[in-house]
Amino acid sequence: MKRTKIRAALEAAGPMDEIVVMGWVRTKRDSKGFSFVELNDGSTLLNIQVVIDHTPEIESVLDRVGTGAAVQISGELVESPGKGQKWEIRGRTIEVFGEADQETFPLQKKRHSDEFLRTIAHLRPRTNKFGAMFRIRSELAQAIHKFFADKGFFYVHTPIVTGSDCEGAGEMFRVTSLEPGADASPDKDFFGKPAQLTVSGQLSAEMFALSLGEVYTFGPTFRAENSNTPRHVAEFWMIEPEMAFADLADDMDLGEEMIKFLITHILDHCPNDVELFAKWVDKGLMLTLENVLQDSFARLPYTEAIDILNKAGKSFEYPVEWGMDLQTEHERFLCEEQFKKPVYVHDYPKSIKPFYMRVNDDGRTVAAMDCLVPRIGELIGGSQREERLDVLLGRMGEMGLSEEDYWWYLDSRRFGSAPHAGFGMGFERMLMLVTGVTNIRDVIPFPRTPNSLEF
Amino acid sequence: MKRTKIRAALEAAGPMDEIVVMGWVRTKRDSKGFSFVELNDGSTLLNIQVVIDHTPEIESVLDRVGTGAAVQISGELVESPGKGQKWEIRGRTIEVFGEADQETFPLQKKRHSDEFLRTIAHLRPRTNKFGAMFRIRSELAQAIHKFFADKGFFYVHTPIVTGSDCEGAGEMFRVTSLEPGADASPDKDFFGKPAQLTVSGQLSAEMFALSLGEVYTFGPTFRAENSNTPRHVAEFWMIEPEMAFADLADDMDLGEEMIKFLITHILDHCPNDVELFAKWVDKGLMLTLENVLQDSFARLPYTEAIDILNKAGKSFEYPVEWGMDLQTEHERFLCEEQFKKPVYVHDYPKSIKPFYMRVNDDGRTVAAMDCLVPRIGELIGGSQREERLDVLLGRMGEMGLSEEDYWWYLDSRRFGSAPHAGFGMGFERMLMLVTGVTNIRDVIPFPRTPNSLEF
Repeated sequence: MKRTKIRAALEAAGPMDEIVVMGWVRTKRDSKGFSFVELNDGSTLLNIQVVIDHTPEIESVLDRVGTGAAVQISGELVESPGKGQKWEIRGRTIEVFGEADQETFPLQKKRHSDEFLRTIAHLRPRTNKFGAMFRIRSELAQAIHKFFADKGFFYVHTPIVTGSDCEGAGEMFRVTSLEPGADASPDKDFFGKPAQLTVSGQLSAEMFALSLGEVYTFGPTFRAENSNTPRHVAEFWMIEPEMAFADLADDMDLGEEMIKFLITHILDHCPNDVELFAKWVDKGLMLTLENVLQDSFARLPYTEAIDILNKAGKSFEYPVEWGMDLQTEHERFLCEEQFKKPVYVHDYPKSIKPFYMRVNDDGRTVAAMDCLVPRIGELIGGSQREERLDVLLGRMGEMGLSEEDYWWYLDSRRFGSAPHAGFGMGFERMLMLVTGVTNIRDVIPFPRTPNSLEF
Repeated sequence: MKRTKIRAALEAAGPMDEIVVMGWVRTKRDSKGFSFVELNDGSTLLNIQVVIDHTPEIESVLDRVGTGAAVQISGELVESPGKGQKWEIRGRTIEVFGEADQETFPLQKKRHSDEFLRTIAHLRPRTNKFGAMFRIRSELAQAIHKFFADKGFFYVHTPIVTGSDCEGAGEMFRVTSLEPGADASPDKDFFGKPAQLTVSGQLSAEMFALSLGEVYTFGPTFRAENSNTPRHVAEFWMIEPEMAFADLADDMDLGEEMIKFLITHILDHCPNDVELFAKWVDKGLMLTLENVLQDSFARLPYTEAIDILNKAGKSFEYPVEWGMDLQTEHERFLCEEQFKKPVYVHDYPKSIKPFYMRVNDDGRTVAAMDCLVPRIGELIGGSQREERLDVLLGRMGEMGLSEEDYWWYLDSRRFGSAPHAGFGMGFERMLMLVTGVTNIRDVIPFPRTPNSLEF
């Protein structure tokens, strides 16, 4: 007989004479003459309750069934007299696939710290919290693809191994096929030149936007930053849409629409899993999410943001002056205290932004934007791109970038150049927003951080 | 006024008094008193035809409009008197975003060789063929997510940077944050131990299948193989489903269902783009695809396949004997000549397969399967995994693998182990199947091969 997933069993339209479920035992309680088994198969947060009468045969099997064991149970799906569940199973047979030794199995029924669970990242998706997390992670990824596909954006796989450094700013991992300590001259190496792990697919995505119109990437990116903070990992996933024939206002519109779509989608599709986080992880989660959904995001130029900060009468750790990059304390003040909702700050000083952002008519700012969200800080960073070849070349000159290295990028401005804009969103940041989880290590299956490469 | 995508314009339900389109000029033909412009914006293979009357102002703009220029045209959408299109635009205004110098723009209206287009991979998506390719690539990726989401599989991002070598077989790229030539002792490096780019997410995916039930990965994988062939690249995308409570037959069922779903989806969603390949690239494409769709795949044990090959009366380059790995010539004979349809060969000799495949009762074969497809060869490779701790440890011992390195993998067999199975499919192989393209470099946006890391 075919297995029925527990999610489907719990949503059954009516009783079933014959049902087979398979999963991992969360708890077993023995009573006189029968036992209760709570079974979970990962298809949903919820367990199905199995009541199974004792016979000598059943009892000998139940002896081997403890928390964590993998079992198959057949029986009848019946209305549950208990509270909180519509259906339960009257078990007829139980078979053990794999036992879990109760002395050594690390996930006994009790709360475990996130720190401890990180040391068993291979087992933590069997807990309620991390099962919920990774179901939400999966659904959020589906939602991203759906959002862009519905709008006619094409998904592009930009390269992971790259010879170019998008941000013009270091901290990249090197990739090599040479042994450590071997003669490391690039011409002996696999690609015949230095190779790195990408920090952004933007430059490649621009080539596709200027061909297919509207595109997005969704793939892993890397930073070799030696920071051990709750917000940094060496490997994370990023979404980068890029639109031809679009300006900075279009870019902000797209970002706002996307964020709202994703939150709505997760609330609709993962109610049980989100509820777990709202109950146990962040009591304010629902308010935060409603706050993001209910109103238009504030939009203000950087220059105005500096004014507001200067007039706020706050003593910031980093003094506020025009030309500085906004620090987390400033960003949090703007969205949490001043506007009390998500805020786009746009038109940043040219001097603190990369070469590819479009220079505004004032000559000293660029058409850049950051989307700041309560509790998370920067969720999105984007810009209209510089489509004018002469201005772009001027900027590259100022910043000491070699035209030769970017010959192909510059070609897109030589041949049929057009206004275009895009942004990047860290996938894990978005997950932290929708779950309230504050450590990025707890939203990634197997996080990569300095001195940590287990699993 | 808002831009209308050309795909939407061509599918309009009725005429429109006002329309604005933006895109790249494919051709311009001047007549007495008016000009024809064929415009493409990447949203579809098809161009929209614009007829625009000459006025002194229009003529001065048209002088700057050649093949490859990016323009905005406003006008009226009217029924086309011409053949092959329902709608055309009577242009009123034309504005140039970016010109394309007709002397130096490499994509003049003529056929270009694939070899040449690889040297301008940043511009080739502006051609009909590569525009079609990358729209199909995008749709195929969407179809994969849809297929698994509809079946209740969860999408898992397994790590790209890894400390473990899934296949137990080398050819991996190293990842380091150390400068070339620096003291390369692993304890000085970012992760404090040797790090590589993943060749497969399977081992990690197994951990999630044994928690969430049914999962899949879809991400980049890497091989540092120094092979310059039409079938090898250093970076490619792979899909790896993994199912708890499943055996080898379930695994083959899933693969067959997936392949058929993907082909059907692409035929339904990308008819124009597929037609281009059927017309210009592979005249037999439609027959190949229909052949895959119309019948059940053949399934036969390896031992039987060896028998058939031995009795085939063919002189193969590699002599056939039990225990050998099948070569391309054998695989092609089986699916192209013997069965004339896709073939699953299963239950391969243990000695030629990795440690994690489940040992069959005969003790000399494992529950492995390869799906062989006409023209492509191996499209899918998978297995039921060894869930029995003692057997797995025995296999690892035979193969000299360290238990310590795989402590977390072994944990999954210590605690609630269960039968499970999965497979890997190369995304690019599938794209080659649905387009008939024979060089893998032509199905990837920016291919990575030995001595080639441009863009």
